[in-house]
Amino acid sequence: MTRPPDALQRLRRVHEDLVLGTLRATGPLSRADIVERTGLSRTTLFAIIADLVRRGAVTEAEARPSGARGRPPTLVALAPEAGQLIGLDLARRRVHLAVANVAHQVVATGTADVSERADAAERAETAVRLIRRVIGERGIGLGSLEAIGLGLHGVVDEPARPAGEGANPAAERLAAEFGVRVAVDNNARLAALAESTWGAAKAVSDLVYVRWSTGIGGGYVVGGRLVRGAHGGAGELGHVSLDPGGPICHCGGRGCLEERAGGQALLEACAARGVAVAGLDELVEAARDRVPEVCALITAAATRIGRVLAGTVVQLDPRRVVLGGELGALGSLVLDPVRAEISRLALPNAAHSLDVVSADLGGNASAMGAIALLLQEDPDIPDHLRPAPSPA
Amino acid sequence: MTRPPDALQRLRRVHEDLVLGTLRATGPLSRADIVERTGLSRTTLFAIIADLVRRGAVTEAEARPSGARGRPPTLVALAPEAGQLIGLDLARRRVHLAVANVAHQVVATGTADVSERADAAERAETAVRLIRRVIGERGIGLGSLEAIGLGLHGVVDEPARPAGEGANPAAERLAAEFGVRVAVDNNARLAALAESTWGAAKAVSDLVYVRWSTGIGGGYVVGGRLVRGAHGGAGELGHVSLDPGGPICHCGGRGCLEERAGGQALLEACAARGVAVAGLDELVEAARDRVPEVCALITAAATRIGRVLAGTVVQLDPRRVVLGGELGALGSLVLDPVRAEISRLALPNAAHSLDVVSADLGGNASAMGAIALLLQEDPDIPDHLRPAPSPA
Repeated sequence: MTRPPDALQRLRRVHEDLVLGTLRATGPLSRADIVERTGLSRTTLFAIIADLVRRGAVTEAEARPSGARGRPPTLVALAPEAGQLIGLDLARRRVHLAVANVAHQVVATGTADVSERADAAERAETAVRLIRRVIGERGIGLGSLEAIGLGLHGVVDEPARPAGEGANPAAERLAAEFGVRVAVDNNARLAALAESTWGAAKAVSDLVYVRWSTGIGGGYVVGGRLVRGAHGGAGELGHVSLDPGGPICHCGGRGCLEERAGGQALLEACAARGVAVAGLDELVEAARDRVPEVCALITAAATRIGRVLAGTVVQLDPRRVVLGGELGALGSLVLDPVRAEISRLALPNAAHSLDVVSADLGGNASAMGAIALLLQEDPDIPDHLRPAPSPA
Repeated sequence: MTRPPDALQRLRRVHEDLVLGTLRATGPLSRADIVERTGLSRTTLFAIIADLVRRGAVTEAEARPSGARGRPPTLVALAPEAGQLIGLDLARRRVHLAVANVAHQVVATGTADVSERADAAERAETAVRLIRRVIGERGIGLGSLEAIGLGLHGVVDEPARPAGEGANPAAERLAAEFGVRVAVDNNARLAALAESTWGAAKAVSDLVYVRWSTGIGGGYVVGGRLVRGAHGGAGELGHVSLDPGGPICHCGGRGCLEERAGGQALLEACAARGVAVAGLDELVEAARDRVPEVCALITAAATRIGRVLAGTVVQLDPRRVVLGGELGALGSLVLDPVRAEISRLALPNAAHSLDVVSADLGGNASAMGAIALLLQEDPDIPDHLRPAPSPA
């Protein structure tokens, strides 16, 4: 967190959120209706609405004449073009952006390329330029911007910490540029949260998500909450050991799943077999073209992932397993071996209902998840305005 | 849940909890102080206190003369001998009991033997007799009894469900006998909750607990909450596959950890090697006597458990791993191999701080955990009266 608001600012934020939350729940309302539903005084409410109108968060319009006597009342409505929450994913080679309006709908997304060698400061500059470009093109106002969620690669220890206390430099830069607080989390975990909020695991509160791409990452949702871990390291599925006597991995462990089934490992296996695929995109294309050697390698890799997931399923008992990332999107080619291995190894006699499905969301999943993080985790948003927890 | 209270009863319960919670937090208070701290009206408060006194939940005593003028006020205090919450563990061969008073302190425990072949009804009768005996011996009143927590072996799908909707028959019997609601959960998970509430992982909100006994079970606490799973099956560590081509386990899987490292498997391995140990207690004794063949078998089993736990640690990133059960209590003999395998396989370069320790609590851990479940999960206890979430 940066710039903690003082008590008076906080109170005004609570009042604002109360008004915006009421409009989100009900649609346009007259001032009298808002007074009744929020319990705010007329004086307080009129001041808040004047400020929200000035900042572009809400608009006013006359209601249609109803046939009743007297002037129709003025209705207050959410402004669809007002950005309230920004989600960013600073991925290895690309910055992804999603913007949610005051109705908490994702109204814009965008991406910008970034060098793999770019440092945090360069990535933050790219993100700032991307935000400015997208809101300019779409006519989105930032007068009601409330927070930024930021997805980062690797271990993210603290989802929100005060400025100057070792926060990520990209988070610092964004907080300074836009004058709002910034919450950060690991981007594979955020993709899991996005799938459970808008995607393939919507309304599923116990979820195991796997991002199968160049590497293998994961994100777990338990009882509707993202599992972060004691040190921000939860979800490192790719570093579960398949073979405790295997070769040493860059993580220091041995026989890690990622080294036997990650996209990079598959590319190396293709090269060793003389199969010409230049990169992950070509590998995925070859799999879609059902090139036999490629399909065999991917099927074997999916079986290994299934073997590790069987252990995860036994321990966490999720309702659904979601395969994301470029390789997770390959449909039955990868889903079937994963399902088969889980069915064979994870308490086959228990007959629990478990789905294994591909992810719904695309490359912007983590940026959207950063918005979901703000909706779910932000302690400044009062409880009664948060989305209801997903039913099991 | 059984006997859902109607709205008026609920309101009275909330008021009662407010008064008891205030006394728990502050110690004895005058009626005037309680009115001030709870915001209840004098009329409401006096009626509640009269009822609590009648039921033996609180007592009244004159304050010591303070030197000030006038009569010293009457102080209201929690009655240490009033039972408010009962925890039970219907284990395979024994029923365990713990009773907490209105101050939420465990004031009595007890056990009774039960046949391994006893059905749910017999176990419930044994539990009823055990409760009656222990409260009789200790002079504990049940006038303020609020709920019973019940630990069961195996998959427990629903921690609390309405009577008649497929609830466990033992839960039904206990609810009928004592006229309170009954919450149920798996007893290994409850032991994990007990360790995180009173034991070896007190104030640790990310915890992996292993119960290493005849079988191998587990319980995970994530972000301060018990992981139950989508079907009540979370924590089945013993059925993670070590060897996907291994022999078929009773769960239907292959090469399960329990078949290679559980107490039963160790006893069979001893028999095959001609080492004379008649049961689990003798096996543990032989290990404490450092019988070489027994120690070698146990060390190898601990290494296998460590191998599975390394995968768990990589995925959940806990702060502490707790080994419970008779075999988990063997100290360095089992802790060292588990630590070594986790250090070798679980992200060695990440240098996260992770403790691996033996459990603190004994055979009544699950019964105590059933009380912790009521304190943490019971939706009828207002949030402000629940124990604060454990800091990381």
